Amino acid sequence: MADIKAVITEYLAAVASGDASKVAALYADEATLEDPVGSEPNRGRAAIEAFYGGLQGEISTELLNARVAGLEAAFHFRVITKAGDATYTIEPIDVMTFDESGKITSMRAFWSPEDMVVG
Amino acid sequence: MADIKAVITEYLAAVASGDASKVAALYADEATLEDPVGSEPNRGRAAIEAFYGGLQGEISTELLNARVAGLEAAFHFRVITKAGDATYTIEPIDVMTFDESGKITSMRAFWSPEDMVVG
Repeated sequence: MADIKAVITEYLAAVASGDASKVAALYADEATLEDPVGSEPNRGRAAIEAFYGGLQGEISTELLNARVAGLEAAFHFRVITKAGDATYTIEPIDVMTFDESGKITSMRAFWSPEDMVVG
Repeated sequence: MADIKAVITEYLAAVASGDASKVAALYADEATLEDPVGSEPNRGRAAIEAFYGGLQGEISTELLNARVAGLEAAFHFRVITKAGDATYTIEPIDVMTFDESGKITSMRAFWSPEDMVVG
Protein backbone atom coordinates (compact mmCIF):
# COMPACT_ATOMS: atom_id res chain seq x y z
CA MET A 1 0.00 0.00 0.00
CA ALA A 2 1.14 3.54 -0.70
CA ASP A 3 2.97 5.44 2.03
CA ILE A 4 0.31 8.06 2.68
CA LYS A 5 2.43 10.19 5.01
CA ALA A 6 5.10 10.38 2.31
CA VAL A 7 2.50 11.56 -0.21
CA ILE A 8 1.35 14.29 2.21
CA THR A 9 4.96 15.44 2.64
CA GLU A 10 5.42 15.45 -1.12
CA TYR A 11 2.19 17.40 -1.53
CA LEU A 12 3.29 20.14 0.88
CA ALA A 13 6.68 20.38 -0.84
CA ALA A 14 4.95 20.70 -4.22
CA VAL A 15 2.68 23.48 -2.89
CA ALA A 16 5.74 25.31 -1.54
CA SER A 17 7.40 25.04 -4.97
CA GLY A 18 4.54 27.11 -6.41
CA ASP A 19 4.50 24.81 -9.44
CA ALA A 20 0.85 24.00 -10.18
CA SER A 21 1.63 21.15 -12.57
CA LYS A 22 3.82 19.49 -9.93
CA VAL A 23 0.97 19.67 -7.40
CA ALA A 24 -1.64 18.49 -9.91
CA ALA A 25 0.55 15.50 -10.83
CA LEU A 26 -0.05 14.12 -7.33
CA TYR A 27 -3.78 13.88 -8.05
CA ALA A 28 -5.63 11.09 -9.85
CA ASP A 29 -7.15 12.00 -13.26
CA GLU A 30 -10.72 12.20 -11.96
CA ALA A 31 -9.92 13.68 -8.55
CA THR A 32 -11.98 16.35 -6.85
CA LEU A 33 -10.77 19.34 -4.85
CA GLU A 34 -13.03 21.33 -2.51
CA ASP A 35 -11.20 24.31 -0.99
CA PRO A 36 -12.64 25.59 1.24
CA VAL A 37 -15.19 22.95 2.28
CA GLY A 38 -18.60 24.19 1.15
CA SER A 39 -17.35 25.68 -2.11
CA GLU A 40 -18.04 24.15 -5.53
CA PRO A 41 -15.54 21.30 -6.03
CA ASN A 42 -13.00 21.42 -8.85
CA ARG A 43 -13.23 18.18 -10.84
CA GLY A 44 -10.44 16.56 -12.84
CA ARG A 45 -6.73 17.22 -12.98
CA ALA A 46 -6.94 20.14 -15.44
CA ALA A 47 -9.31 22.06 -13.16
CA ILE A 48 -7.11 21.14 -10.21
CA GLU A 49 -4.00 22.46 -11.93
CA ALA A 50 -5.86 25.70 -12.72
CA PHE A 51 -6.77 26.00 -9.04
CA TYR A 52 -3.13 25.74 -7.94
CA GLY A 53 -2.23 28.21 -10.70
CA GLY A 54 -3.44 30.77 -8.15
CA LEU A 55 -0.35 30.09 -6.02
CA GLN A 56 1.76 33.23 -5.94
CA GLY A 57 4.61 34.79 -4.02
CA GLU A 58 7.12 33.00 -1.84
CA ILE A 59 5.44 30.04 -0.18
CA SER A 60 6.52 27.88 2.71
CA THR A 61 4.64 24.94 4.17
CA GLU A 62 4.96 22.94 7.35
CA LEU A 63 3.17 19.78 8.39
CA LEU A 64 1.87 20.18 11.93
CA ASN A 65 0.03 16.87 12.39
CA ALA A 66 -1.16 14.03 10.21
CA ARG A 67 -3.56 11.21 11.01
CA VAL A 68 -3.78 8.38 8.52
CA ALA A 69 -6.51 5.74 8.48
CA GLY A 70 -6.07 3.32 5.61
CA LEU A 71 -6.30 5.24 2.33
CA GLU A 72 -7.69 8.37 3.98
CA ALA A 73 -5.94 11.06 5.96
CA ALA A 74 -6.55 14.29 7.82
CA PHE A 75 -3.66 16.65 8.37
CA HIS A 76 -3.09 20.03 9.89
CA PHE A 77 -0.48 22.23 8.26
CA ARG A 78 0.74 25.78 7.93
CA VAL A 79 1.10 27.74 4.72
CA ILE A 80 2.96 31.06 4.81
CA THR A 81 2.81 33.18 1.69
CA LYS A 82 4.94 36.29 1.27
CA ALA A 83 3.68 38.62 -1.42
CA GLY A 84 5.21 42.07 -1.54
CA ASP A 85 5.34 43.42 2.00
CA ALA A 86 2.52 41.22 3.28
CA THR A 87 2.69 37.80 4.91
CA TYR A 88 -0.38 35.57 4.94
CA THR A 89 -0.49 32.61 7.31
CA ILE A 90 -3.17 29.97 7.21
CA GLU A 91 -3.30 26.61 9.03
CA PRO A 92 -6.00 24.49 7.41
CA ILE A 93 -6.96 20.92 8.17
CA ASP A 94 -7.12 19.00 4.90
CA VAL A 95 -8.90 15.69 4.43
CA MET A 96 -7.71 13.53 1.54
CA THR A 97 -8.53 10.17 0.04
CA PHE A 98 -6.05 8.21 -2.04
CA ASP A 99 -6.03 5.34 -4.50
CA GLU A 100 -3.88 2.25 -4.05
CA SER A 101 -0.99 3.86 -5.95
CA GLY A 102 -1.03 6.87 -3.60
CA LYS A 103 -2.59 9.37 -6.01
CA ILE A 104 -4.93 11.84 -4.32
CA THR A 105 -8.54 11.09 -5.31
CA SER A 106 -10.16 13.85 -3.26
CA MET A 107 -9.10 16.82 -1.18
CA ARG A 108 -11.29 18.90 1.12
CA ALA A 109 -9.76 21.87 2.94
CA PHE A 110 -11.29 22.91 6.26
CA TRP A 111 -10.69 26.59 7.01
CA SER A 112 -12.59 29.82 7.05
CA PRO A 113 -11.46 33.34 6.11
CA GLU A 114 -11.28 34.30 9.80
CA ASP A 115 -8.48 31.73 10.23
CA MET A 116 -6.19 33.76 7.93
CA VAL A 117 -3.57 35.87 9.70
CA VAL A 118 -2.14 38.81 7.77
CA GLY A 119 1.12 40.27 9.04
CA MET B 1 -26.82 29.18 12.39
CA ALA B 2 -25.52 26.98 15.21
CA ASP B 3 -22.25 27.90 16.89
CA ILE B 4 -20.21 24.91 15.71
CA LYS B 5 -17.16 25.67 17.84
CA ALA B 6 -19.39 25.71 20.92
CA VAL B 7 -20.81 22.30 19.96
CA ILE B 8 -17.29 20.90 19.61
CA THR B 9 -16.38 22.23 23.06
CA GLU B 10 -19.57 20.72 24.48
CA TYR B 11 -18.77 17.41 22.78
CA LEU B 12 -15.29 17.20 24.32
CA ALA B 13 -16.69 18.07 27.76
CA ALA B 14 -19.32 15.34 27.38
CA VAL B 15 -16.66 12.78 26.39
CA ALA B 16 -14.61 13.76 29.45
CA SER B 17 -17.67 13.25 31.66
CA GLY B 18 -17.71 9.60 30.59
CA ASP B 19 -21.52 9.80 30.34
CA ALA B 20 -22.47 8.04 27.10
CA SER B 21 -26.04 9.36 27.08
CA LYS B 22 -24.76 12.93 27.40
CA VAL B 23 -22.46 12.44 24.41
CA ALA B 24 -25.16 10.70 22.36
CA ALA B 25 -27.60 13.55 23.06
CA LEU B 26 -25.37 15.82 20.96
CA TYR B 27 -26.03 13.63 17.91
CA ALA B 28 -29.00 13.77 15.54
CA ASP B 29 -31.34 10.74 15.61
CA GLU B 30 -30.05 9.27 12.35
CA ALA B 31 -26.42 10.24 12.78
CA THR B 32 -23.48 8.04 11.81
CA LEU B 33 -20.22 7.52 13.67
CA GLU B 34 -17.12 5.99 12.07
CA ASP B 35 -14.29 5.58 14.57
CA PRO B 36 -11.67 4.97 13.35
CA VAL B 37 -12.17 5.91 9.70
CA GLY B 38 -12.38 2.68 7.70
CA SER B 39 -14.35 0.78 10.35
CA GLU B 40 -18.03 -0.10 9.99
CA PRO B 41 -20.05 3.04 10.90
CA ASN B 42 -22.43 3.01 13.87
CA ARG B 43 -25.83 4.23 12.71
CA GLY B 44 -28.46 5.96 14.85
CA ARG B 45 -28.31 7.43 18.33
CA ALA B 46 -28.81 4.13 20.17
CA ALA B 47 -25.80 2.55 18.45
CA ILE B 48 -23.84 5.73 19.06
CA GLU B 49 -24.66 5.70 22.77
CA ALA B 50 -23.55 2.06 22.92
CA PHE B 51 -20.25 3.06 21.28
CA TYR B 52 -19.57 5.72 23.92
CA GLY B 53 -20.58 3.20 26.58
CA GLY B 54 -17.03 1.93 26.09
CA LEU B 55 -15.67 5.06 27.79
CA GLN B 56 -13.96 4.02 31.00
CA GLY B 57 -11.56 5.37 33.58
CA GLU B 58 -10.75 8.99 34.28
CA ILE B 59 -10.91 10.92 31.02
CA SER B 60 -9.67 14.37 30.15
CA THR B 61 -9.97 16.08 26.79
CA GLU B 62 -8.37 19.15 25.26
CA LEU B 63 -9.16 20.89 22.00
CA LEU B 64 -5.92 21.55 20.11
CA ASN B 65 -7.28 23.09 16.91
CA ALA B 66 -10.62 23.43 15.18
CA ARG B 67 -11.40 24.51 11.64
CA VAL B 68 -15.03 25.20 10.82
CA ALA B 69 -16.41 25.58 7.30
CA GLY B 70 -20.16 26.19 7.33
CA LEU B 71 -21.87 23.17 8.93
CA GLU B 72 -18.76 20.99 8.75
CA ALA B 73 -15.70 20.97 10.94
CA ALA B 74 -12.37 19.24 11.42
CA PHE B 75 -10.71 19.39 14.80
CA HIS B 76 -7.61 18.03 16.44
CA PHE B 77 -7.86 17.13 20.10
CA ARG B 78 -6.25 15.15 22.87
CA VAL B 79 -7.90 12.47 24.97
CA ILE B 80 -6.09 11.18 28.03
CA THR B 81 -7.57 8.15 29.76
CA LYS B 82 -6.31 6.94 33.11
CA ALA B 83 -7.29 3.38 33.87
CA GLY B 84 -5.56 1.74 36.81
CA ASP B 85 -1.85 2.51 36.58
CA ALA B 86 -1.89 3.10 32.84
CA THR B 87 -2.38 6.35 30.94
CA TYR B 88 -3.48 6.27 27.30
CA THR B 89 -3.05 9.38 25.18
CA ILE B 90 -4.50 9.75 21.72
CA GLU B 91 -4.78 12.89 19.56
CA PRO B 92 -7.22 12.17 16.73
CA ILE B 93 -8.49 14.51 14.07
CA ASP B 94 -12.28 14.26 13.93
CA VAL B 95 -14.42 15.42 11.03
CA MET B 96 -18.04 16.21 11.83
CA THR B 97 -21.09 17.44 9.97
CA PHE B 98 -23.96 19.20 11.72
CA ASP B 99 -27.58 20.07 11.06
CA GLU B 100 -28.92 23.63 11.31
CA SER B 101 -29.70 23.16 15.00
CA GLY B 102 -26.12 22.13 15.73
CA LYS B 103 -26.76 18.40 16.23
CA ILE B 104 -23.94 16.18 14.97
CA THR B 105 -25.10 14.31 11.85
CA SER B 106 -21.86 12.45 11.21
CA MET B 107 -18.53 11.92 12.90
CA ARG B 108 -15.43 10.33 11.40
CA ALA B 109 -12.33 9.91 13.58
CA PHE B 110 -8.94 9.88 11.86
CA TRP B 111 -6.34 7.99 13.86
CA SER B 112 -4.51 4.69 13.77
CA PRO B 113 -3.42 2.41 16.61
CA GLU B 114 0.22 3.56 16.21
CA ASP B 115 -0.90 7.08 17.24
CA MET B 116 -1.78 5.82 20.73
CA VAL B 117 0.76 6.57 23.44
CA VAL B 118 0.69 4.36 26.54
CA GLY B 119 2.47 5.70 29.62
